[in-house]
Amino acid sequence: MKKPMNLIFVLALVGILAGAAFAQFAKTEDAIKYRQSVMFLVGQHFSRMGAVVKGEQPYNKEAFEKNAVLVESLYRLPLEAFMTPGSDKGSGMKADALAQKDKFTQMHNTTEAELAKLAAVAKGGDLSAIKPQFGAAGASCKACHDAFHNK
Amino acid sequence: MKKPMNLIFVLALVGILAGAAFAQFAKTEDAIKYRQSVMFLVGQHFSRMGAVVKGEQPYNKEAFEKNAVLVESLYRLPLEAFMTPGSDKGSGMKADALAQKDKFTQMHNTTEAELAKLAAVAKGGDLSAIKPQFGAAGASCKACHDAFHNK
Repeated sequence: MKKPMNLIFVLALVGILAGAAFAQFAKTEDAIKYRQSVMFLVGQHFSRMGAVVKGEQPYNKEAFEKNAVLVESLYRLPLEAFMTPGSDKGSGMKADALAQKDKFTQMHNTTEAELAKLAAVAKGGDLSAIKPQFGAAGASCKACHDAFHNK
Repeated sequence: MKKPMNLIFVLALVGILAGAAFAQFAKTEDAIKYRQSVMFLVGQHFSRMGAVVKGEQPYNKEAFEKNAVLVESLYRLPLEAFMTPGSDKGSGMKADALAQKDKFTQMHNTTEAELAKLAAVAKGGDLSAIKPQFGAAGASCKACHDAFHNK
């Protein structure tokens, strides 16, 4: 079922989506579902890398890199959905999150940078360099979740 | 930077996100949620192109191309999730879909090809060429939904 990594695909995602500002959600619920969809996919592919870092799965450079690039790419999508007014209702977002948009954006950008670094070291293929960067990326995820996501 | 501590944090996060198992999908429900997440995002970005094709939104080459490339890229992700045994339960998938895996895969691949063509014409920037290919892509989506998705 696995296909070889499609470099065009991943490079297109990374390049095309960088700085992209996708407008328009028809409904507030769509913004919530949009970001939840992205974050579920991010979680899935981040966890696949985590299994390797923990030694539960063997390290395969191509597969790890694919996951890292995909996570980096996906994570560029949802900021606008997070910022959508009213979307703090009916989601796991803390009630005061949208009152701290600057902090939210800053933390989002920090994670984005950590994920970009992770993709870069994944391309390098040195697991001893990947592991600490995976940790740094995960820590930035956790910091933002702690700040803005209900337990 | 306390990288070992970061690693501990992230491993905890991975555990929270995905449970202990690291098969491609830890649970059948994850496969369902995975493909539903992908398809929601595909639907969102396909609809944004649809609004342009229908004349409800102005045509902007860069924005249209971003949507087309994103949809093409996302659509490469979920086939394995669709094929996961047992995932026809508790989802919108028709009961007999997984008994027709070859047909399902063939239709999925057809849509993948149509979306690749759509991304290609979107890069060309000729709306008169984009419109019929958008229609062809949408028709392939509909054909597969009609075959395998409950109304």
